[in-house]
Amino acid sequence: MPRFRETKVGEILNQAVARKKILDKVRTADAAGKWVLENASDGIITSYDRYLAQQPQCSFGLTGVCCRNCVQGPCRIMPTGEAKSRGICGATAYTIVARGLARGIAGGASSHSDHGRHMAKTLLEVAEGRAPDYKVSDPAKLRRVALKVGINPEGKSDRELAKEVALKALNDYYRFDEKPLTWLDSYITPGRRAKFKHTNIIPTNLMQAITEVISQTVMGMDADPVNIIFGGLKTALADFTGMHVATDMSDILFGTPEPVATEANLGVLEEEYINVATHGHNPTLSDMIVEAALQLEPEAIKAGAKGIKIVGVCCTGNELLMRKGIPLAANQASQELAIMTGAVDAMVVDVQCFLPSLKVLSDNYHTRLVTTAINAKIPTATHIDFNEEEALELAKDIVRQAIEAYKRRNKDKIRIPKEKTKALAGFSTEAIESLLAAVNPEQPWKVLTDAIESGELAGVALFAGCNNQKVAQDEGHLTVAKYLAKNNVLLLATGCAAGALAKAGLTTPGAVEAYAGDGLKSFLKRIEEAAKPQYGLPLVFHQGSCVDNVRGLDLAVKMAETWGIDLPRVPFVVTAPEDMHEKALSIGSWFVTMGFPVHVGVMPPIEGSELVYSVGTQIAYDVFGGSFIFDTDPESGAKKLVDALDYRTWKLRIHRAAAEKYNTALASGY
Amino acid sequence: MPRFRETKVGEILNQAVARKKILDKVRTADAAGKWVLENASDGIITSYDRYLAQQPQCSFGLTGVCCRNCVQGPCRIMPTGEAKSRGICGATAYTIVARGLARGIAGGASSHSDHGRHMAKTLLEVAEGRAPDYKVSDPAKLRRVALKVGINPEGKSDRELAKEVALKALNDYYRFDEKPLTWLDSYITPGRRAKFKHTNIIPTNLMQAITEVISQTVMGMDADPVNIIFGGLKTALADFTGMHVATDMSDILFGTPEPVATEANLGVLEEEYINVATHGHNPTLSDMIVEAALQLEPEAIKAGAKGIKIVGVCCTGNELLMRKGIPLAANQASQELAIMTGAVDAMVVDVQCFLPSLKVLSDNYHTRLVTTAINAKIPTATHIDFNEEEALELAKDIVRQAIEAYKRRNKDKIRIPKEKTKALAGFSTEAIESLLAAVNPEQPWKVLTDAIESGELAGVALFAGCNNQKVAQDEGHLTVAKYLAKNNVLLLATGCAAGALAKAGLTTPGAVEAYAGDGLKSFLKRIEEAAKPQYGLPLVFHQGSCVDNVRGLDLAVKMAETWGIDLPRVPFVVTAPEDMHEKALSIGSWFVTMGFPVHVGVMPPIEGSELVYSVGTQIAYDVFGGSFIFDTDPESGAKKLVDALDYRTWKLRIHRAAAEKYNTALASGY
Repeated sequence: MPRFRETKVGEILNQAVARKKILDKVRTADAAGKWVLENASDGIITSYDRYLAQQPQCSFGLTGVCCRNCVQGPCRIMPTGEAKSRGICGATAYTIVARGLARGIAGGASSHSDHGRHMAKTLLEVAEGRAPDYKVSDPAKLRRVALKVGINPEGKSDRELAKEVALKALNDYYRFDEKPLTWLDSYITPGRRAKFKHTNIIPTNLMQAITEVISQTVMGMDADPVNIIFGGLKTALADFTGMHVATDMSDILFGTPEPVATEANLGVLEEEYINVATHGHNPTLSDMIVEAALQLEPEAIKAGAKGIKIVGVCCTGNELLMRKGIPLAANQASQELAIMTGAVDAMVVDVQCFLPSLKVLSDNYHTRLVTTAINAKIPTATHIDFNEEEALELAKDIVRQAIEAYKRRNKDKIRIPKEKTKALAGFSTEAIESLLAAVNPEQPWKVLTDAIESGELAGVALFAGCNNQKVAQDEGHLTVAKYLAKNNVLLLATGCAAGALAKAGLTTPGAVEAYAGDGLKSFLKRIEEAAKPQYGLPLVFHQGSCVDNVRGLDLAVKMAETWGIDLPRVPFVVTAPEDMHEKALSIGSWFVTMGFPVHVGVMPPIEGSELVYSVGTQIAYDVFGGSFIFDTDPESGAKKLVDALDYRTWKLRIHRAAAEKYNTALASGY
Repeated sequence: MPRFRETKVGEILNQAVARKKILDKVRTADAAGKWVLENASDGIITSYDRYLAQQPQCSFGLTGVCCRNCVQGPCRIMPTGEAKSRGICGATAYTIVARGLARGIAGGASSHSDHGRHMAKTLLEVAEGRAPDYKVSDPAKLRRVALKVGINPEGKSDRELAKEVALKALNDYYRFDEKPLTWLDSYITPGRRAKFKHTNIIPTNLMQAITEVISQTVMGMDADPVNIIFGGLKTALADFTGMHVATDMSDILFGTPEPVATEANLGVLEEEYINVATHGHNPTLSDMIVEAALQLEPEAIKAGAKGIKIVGVCCTGNELLMRKGIPLAANQASQELAIMTGAVDAMVVDVQCFLPSLKVLSDNYHTRLVTTAINAKIPTATHIDFNEEEALELAKDIVRQAIEAYKRRNKDKIRIPKEKTKALAGFSTEAIESLLAAVNPEQPWKVLTDAIESGELAGVALFAGCNNQKVAQDEGHLTVAKYLAKNNVLLLATGCAAGALAKAGLTTPGAVEAYAGDGLKSFLKRIEEAAKPQYGLPLVFHQGSCVDNVRGLDLAVKMAETWGIDLPRVPFVVTAPEDMHEKALSIGSWFVTMGFPVHVGVMPPIEGSELVYSVGTQIAYDVFGGSFIFDTDPESGAKKLVDALDYRTWKLRIHRAAAEKYNTALASGY
């Protein structure tokens, strides 16, 4: 099995000079981030430093063989000696590793569950007139979603329909009828439906799936690793459901993304403006921040600024980027660096992936850190309890915090890097379909599948996941992307992966010229010529925030439908070169159950069990047609992805030849 | 802060001789268990050995400052150095410790949630005629519960009412109306209702509370330890709800326990009989096993046995003990020892607290290990998927496994210890009320409250919780119980605590003579004389399995109502001298929020944060009137419990004096 990258044991560097040497090439591939770390970090401790301070990390924890699920523990499993090879209760490595993995998936699923539920509740509030600052921005999407989940939209007003759709989405969280979750069942292929039924992993209530897997993994419950993993996969499908609810509700409330051009990286911060960084995952608040900033422009000018500039961080950043063209300042690992420019007047966080260190960091500057979710606070940060009923007023309060902070700026501390780049975003699956329809209006997705069958494209890859300090920031994303592009793989991206690629200029048309292989170039050019998109076509199609990974799944389903096959035969792969969050575990897990090869670049804690490792890499393939490719070397991982695509395309061609010979449909198995 | 007991670092003993020395006094206070370990353990590795093999345990894990909530981890916090005092994300010790605690509570709550839901579904199936082998065994309890939760039972058949009650219970799991959970709200005092509302910890959907706290504790969410702990307390109240549902449904289905006499400890196994040990927590299966054993008696006799003997282990054991007088063979830590007698022909487990080592252990004997729950398997054990529709038939299949195994018994390996003792059980709160009513039919609970006010009794203590290999088995329970009894505290017990006290003969009338102080003696004698209970009155009132801790809460509410005060002023304390399971964490937490001092004898992993420790021991008192007493020395812990009771009684007397002087009601605050 591939193992961890070498870490520099005990290398704890507190001096800036020594740190610079380490940071230069090893810690980040982001030029702007590197500049900030080199020019603005004297005496400031960041997650880059804390990573080094944590070396060496505990090998029991790294490999998943430490169990703390009861007060007898912690138990740490060693392969030698019968007594040591089991925890006090008798749990062996495979039980402990599987439990840890399943609980990690539950962590991810609960995050997306809460996110989706929040969005559905917001839509319900809109429908019931309780959230006056919001509206159904995309009635067409509302109607598409309604049809998709079995609601007849005819003769219903937007409000009536919004209520019905919102309640049906909430029903996936609260119902007791033991039917498959609507937002899962409506979006998958018949083949997957049968597979999930056969393997008994269809969740019937989103929160019950999470509760059950936690219960399954307490002391003295399930010791069977395969059973536990299947419990985890059921939870992963619940995760998918919550994500799809979130994406659908967000599109209805804020609009289905369409191609938009903006800029990315820390250089988007502007000294003359009041800079408000919105950070987290939920578009509900950030959408209002944008509106509030517009309305408070005069106050900003009065305070001496040229105006208010909203920039995005992490997935809240992606939400604003793809729908409003708001520039993206940072992805996960460079959130601290944004504050270290000295030019962020307020950082507003909602939920997930913000660092608890932001407060102690912002204390070194004038930056006002504002938390807004009742279940996501940072001690001593300013907390403004955001709610949809008073959304705009609260957003104004927050923006005014930035205006006040601006007045206290220390100009000596301002160090904004020059680096920024053009970035395209907004490539929802619907937007991609429109582009393809310019070539083939009747069967838009056939443009894509034909290109794969002809060998022009090797297939499609979706970039997902985070940053992880265990590897140099963004390097994995960039390496894999460049390799795949050269090998004619059409690239989609979400979340911090999309952020990485955007910051490096890979979501631009220019990158096509620089990195795309001939097939990918000719494919994109053909579409560009037919569709004439305003901003051209980028090398990487930015699909949104991390909940928007479901857009990739929807796209793969379109391909499967076009071919008349099930997902495990579609040349579509997923890569998370820098997975970090529990959400990445759950997303990766459902992509595997959906039937796709999933490359993971940072090892999750499963290496302590050969069995669990093998279930992920091999048994999963036998059962679901998808499997994990664990490879911490990005180039090697990328090669394996291309191999996986080639294998699928090769099989497709064989099946195509057979189908033509016997005049039948394509074989749908795998 | 009190710290851990000394552990014998690195002392790993594989030879029986050396082990005996260690085991003799240090590892268990149970005479039967000691005998088995000394006489039947050659070459067999048990949890007693695995505990030693795990020494030294990781101090980061022990104190809760190891975080593995994302793939960047594990991060281990050290107090020195700014970089090391935070995880890679910037989380400090208090965040990490609080997260771990909250997730532990979620583990407990999910266990009880699933248990309660299963019981409610079974009642629904009975009501709908889908579980023909079960019935409403206690229509009076059904009606009492209906009234308690706001259902009018008048004019309804048992079936109709059972359906309504079951659906209302399930509604606590599936509803979306944001009202307080029915099974919480119906059983608490007005004071607690107001307190929980004020502190915003009332759960409105049981599984949502669990999902939310998992989401609250993912990477990049809540960093505020107090906020996280309050999320944990909300989840703990969800835990209470699931437990009360479980207890109520079990009483309706299988009968509210009434005093019953039987025997306890490993000596209850009989060589001439086919011994079937039922183990786990859920009475649904075990109830059928008892019936199946009765019906299959002829087959057993044909196989050469005198008959079939059912014995209980853990809380399934307690369920059968209190309702059917089935003898209790073992509590948690001696479950392996039961198999090591060589006389257990089948061990049947349902859910929770069974050791994964049971299979490898039973492979050394003829014992057939049968798992029965789809979410709680042990690899290579016989699995029979139990369901309520075919309950009796499946139970017969299981008992037949025992009959078959009996034929393969190795007589040379049989080593049954002589130790067993009489044991009384079945002291539900209703049963205790009946006893008290013999003295005062109008106001039965006044018999108890008067005894406390007069000083005859010091108060009431409830024993809860597990065994934990970190301390000598049962020793904590016995030490605390004897100390409290001597100090005239009325004793209740549940779960493995009750098992420990039963096995040591403390649930007998004889123990009153041996251990009770004069006040407790006279109190019990007075009731005994009035009620003339068939088996006399024991020193400790065995209230059932661990979900039945809610019976203790109900009893405390009766006391509070009698006095007209809120719970934090009732001289009622809780002790878990050997807490081990995540369920113990959640139970302890809700008892604290209910307003009681809760002694905990094995440190949960919170010592890494002074703040979290102080919230549990001090802030909790200020907010809820209850708090944790962490004390790993059982006698010292017991003293603190008596002090806590004395303090409450002293205050009560002051308030009584004031109330009499001014002719008012007792003050209800704390």
